[in-house]
Amino acid sequence: MAEAWTGNAVVGQSGGPTVVINQSLVGVIEEIQKYRHIKNLLGAHHGVHGIIHEQFYDLNRQPTQMLDLVAQTPAAALGSTRDKPDQKYCERIFEVFRKRDVRYFFYIGGNDSASTARIIERVARDNHYALRVIHIPKTIDNDLLVTDHCPGYGSAARFVASAFMGDDLDNRALRGVKINILMGRDAGFITAASILARQREDDGPHLVYVPERPFSVEQFVADVAAVYERLGRCVVAVSEGIRDEKGELWAAKVSVLRQAHLEVDAHGNVQLGEGVGSLADYLAGTLRAQARNIKRVRADTYGYLQRSFPGYYSHVDAWEARLVGQMAVSYSADSEVNGSVALVRLPGTTYAVGTKLVGLSQVAPDAPPKTKSLPAEYINQAGNNIEASYREYVGPLVGDLPKIGWFEQIAEAMPTRP
Amino acid sequence: MAEAWTGNAVVGQSGGPTVVINQSLVGVIEEIQKYRHIKNLLGAHHGVHGIIHEQFYDLNRQPTQMLDLVAQTPAAALGSTRDKPDQKYCERIFEVFRKRDVRYFFYIGGNDSASTARIIERVARDNHYALRVIHIPKTIDNDLLVTDHCPGYGSAARFVASAFMGDDLDNRALRGVKINILMGRDAGFITAASILARQREDDGPHLVYVPERPFSVEQFVADVAAVYERLGRCVVAVSEGIRDEKGELWAAKVSVLRQAHLEVDAHGNVQLGEGVGSLADYLAGTLRAQARNIKRVRADTYGYLQRSFPGYYSHVDAWEARLVGQMAVSYSADSEVNGSVALVRLPGTTYAVGTKLVGLSQVAPDAPPKTKSLPAEYINQAGNNIEASYREYVGPLVGDLPKIGWFEQIAEAMPTRP
Repeated sequence: MAEAWTGNAVVGQSGGPTVVINQSLVGVIEEIQKYRHIKNLLGAHHGVHGIIHEQFYDLNRQPTQMLDLVAQTPAAALGSTRDKPDQKYCERIFEVFRKRDVRYFFYIGGNDSASTARIIERVARDNHYALRVIHIPKTIDNDLLVTDHCPGYGSAARFVASAFMGDDLDNRALRGVKINILMGRDAGFITAASILARQREDDGPHLVYVPERPFSVEQFVADVAAVYERLGRCVVAVSEGIRDEKGELWAAKVSVLRQAHLEVDAHGNVQLGEGVGSLADYLAGTLRAQARNIKRVRADTYGYLQRSFPGYYSHVDAWEARLVGQMAVSYSADSEVNGSVALVRLPGTTYAVGTKLVGLSQVAPDAPPKTKSLPAEYINQAGNNIEASYREYVGPLVGDLPKIGWFEQIAEAMPTRP
Repeated sequence: MAEAWTGNAVVGQSGGPTVVINQSLVGVIEEIQKYRHIKNLLGAHHGVHGIIHEQFYDLNRQPTQMLDLVAQTPAAALGSTRDKPDQKYCERIFEVFRKRDVRYFFYIGGNDSASTARIIERVARDNHYALRVIHIPKTIDNDLLVTDHCPGYGSAARFVASAFMGDDLDNRALRGVKINILMGRDAGFITAASILARQREDDGPHLVYVPERPFSVEQFVADVAAVYERLGRCVVAVSEGIRDEKGELWAAKVSVLRQAHLEVDAHGNVQLGEGVGSLADYLAGTLRAQARNIKRVRADTYGYLQRSFPGYYSHVDAWEARLVGQMAVSYSADSEVNGSVALVRLPGTTYAVGTKLVGLSQVAPDAPPKTKSLPAEYINQAGNNIEASYREYVGPLVGDLPKIGWFEQIAEAMPTRP
């Protein structure tokens, strides 16, 4: 194996923040101290945007006390971006890389960030510029290809499962229908995690709708009415990414109905968030109008809390996010190829993971599917619930959940005290 | 002092749940063991609704392990209700009370529950039925009269302050405008607590709107544009209860615009929740249309998470909620009057509280004001922010907040490693 070349490194964060993305960043910073191949580590302010504007943090000189605290802090400590570099943007990146002798580029992010990493890899190769590019996975959506799961997902899943525990208790206390709209533009992983809230047989969520199956409002109303008839209440998990039979986003349809404006980012993704609050109100309003025996209907949109709530994360997720950052540095020293760090679940009965480096073209391919969907085996036949088998996949990523207490019996007769 | 009469007791929970309302319930259950005046303790299933339907939990026989767990569990373990008893309803209540020799009635709830307690007190007196009625305060809205603050508020405030810490970090990472709609139908206490998220000078929320001041959309757009101009981003806290100059709810106005239907409960309150998701989208959409230089606008509605998120509460709040439950039993044994347990903040430099029993007519008066508003001294002149002095009031109720780390400097020049 050839010896790793020597130079400086840039690390950046990109795309939607998570509560553990800074674990990966700190993993890179601390691991570099063990090696000789990287001299100085620059933190790009707002990802590639910071590179072209030459705005960097000096990451060699941050005190360890602060690194420990940053690791536990949600969002992206370096700042993030949704910029997607084009040819001219790349020229400027390489101008800066040359000037500062940057030979290692670590980019922490999701699908779009992997794409950006791949573009930079290609431009480096075309220009015979010696650069090692390592993508470090991050996304609450859990929709990256190859990796068993994505750092950031376990914590978002833990937040959602905990939130549904509380919401289900609230719904038991004041009965009615409660609808919660959850993140997940294309994949139902976050929404599916809501089933971890179930302990008792009649615990919610009672219905779960993911983007992988077409969503029909008629079926939704019938489903909710049936649960309400049986239990006198109903808690529903709905992904913000639900689509109709033609594949059109319901959030977009509702927004058009209400003259709202959707944003489209540089990567061509519709930016949900707008229209999502209206989606909640639309579903609630439709239920009120069409299922008149239901007395109380509420709808919330969990929104950014799912990816940014501080001090509430999965310990497994935080550990793994740190690990992939550290392994990125290790791969940069030992391997002669670029790639993305993937988590591999080890076969066996007790949960354990390893990592591997996979080619960027596998994580950011040219042809669809470019992202991972919730596997069909986890969605029930009717498309309105998640199979219990999903717990085996998601449970270990989430770790401990709050303990819940309740009173078992209702006294029929007057109790007597001895 | 006359000796307390002997009989059975009913305890119930009423109104919107909180994460610590079960602390008060368990406080009642455990404290009764110390006294002889109450023989059996019945837990009314869904408040007064459970009384008239004779659905009770036997609270003398719940294992201590389960009581400890129930105390930490959000929502109302006995079930809650929004029923307001009329004459016929009361007749049925007293029929059950007579049949079961109920001589003590503990009711845990907010303003409407205090009203219910007062109705029951009056009917008992009119019928010469010996009954001691004690109201135990609970409401995340913090709008009960007399008491320094309400059990349930500190935990909701802690959730909101933590959420804004995360949301502000998220907004720093991906800059733009973020609007969060918070609970509080008439009072701005929950929304005001968002200022605890601020550590650095430029931390959000940068603007805070409460129901105590009329909300003008024109002013809102101008305020946000000014902050955005200065910082390149803006985080906004908006109460769901904001009203226009005529006192009309914005959530209702937006719902009418969008043909949604608002619910009105038995106490005559408009039940927000519906229209609130649309309010978020309406404010975001208006900003997009009128402040076109702002590139990225997002809006979330925190919703029920503020009152039901499990495992995330204020320790001070949990302790006080337990205390008021215990003191209710103590007052029932030692005092000859009915009343509501109020928290009294002891004068001095270090936060400490005591309790007192106040007449039900003081907490549920016949004439307005029937609830407490955020004192005017805490709202800034422009009506778009909360004064720093509010920290002194709210800080001790919330307790510890997550620690946040960040990188201080941006390296202008290339750093060199020794």
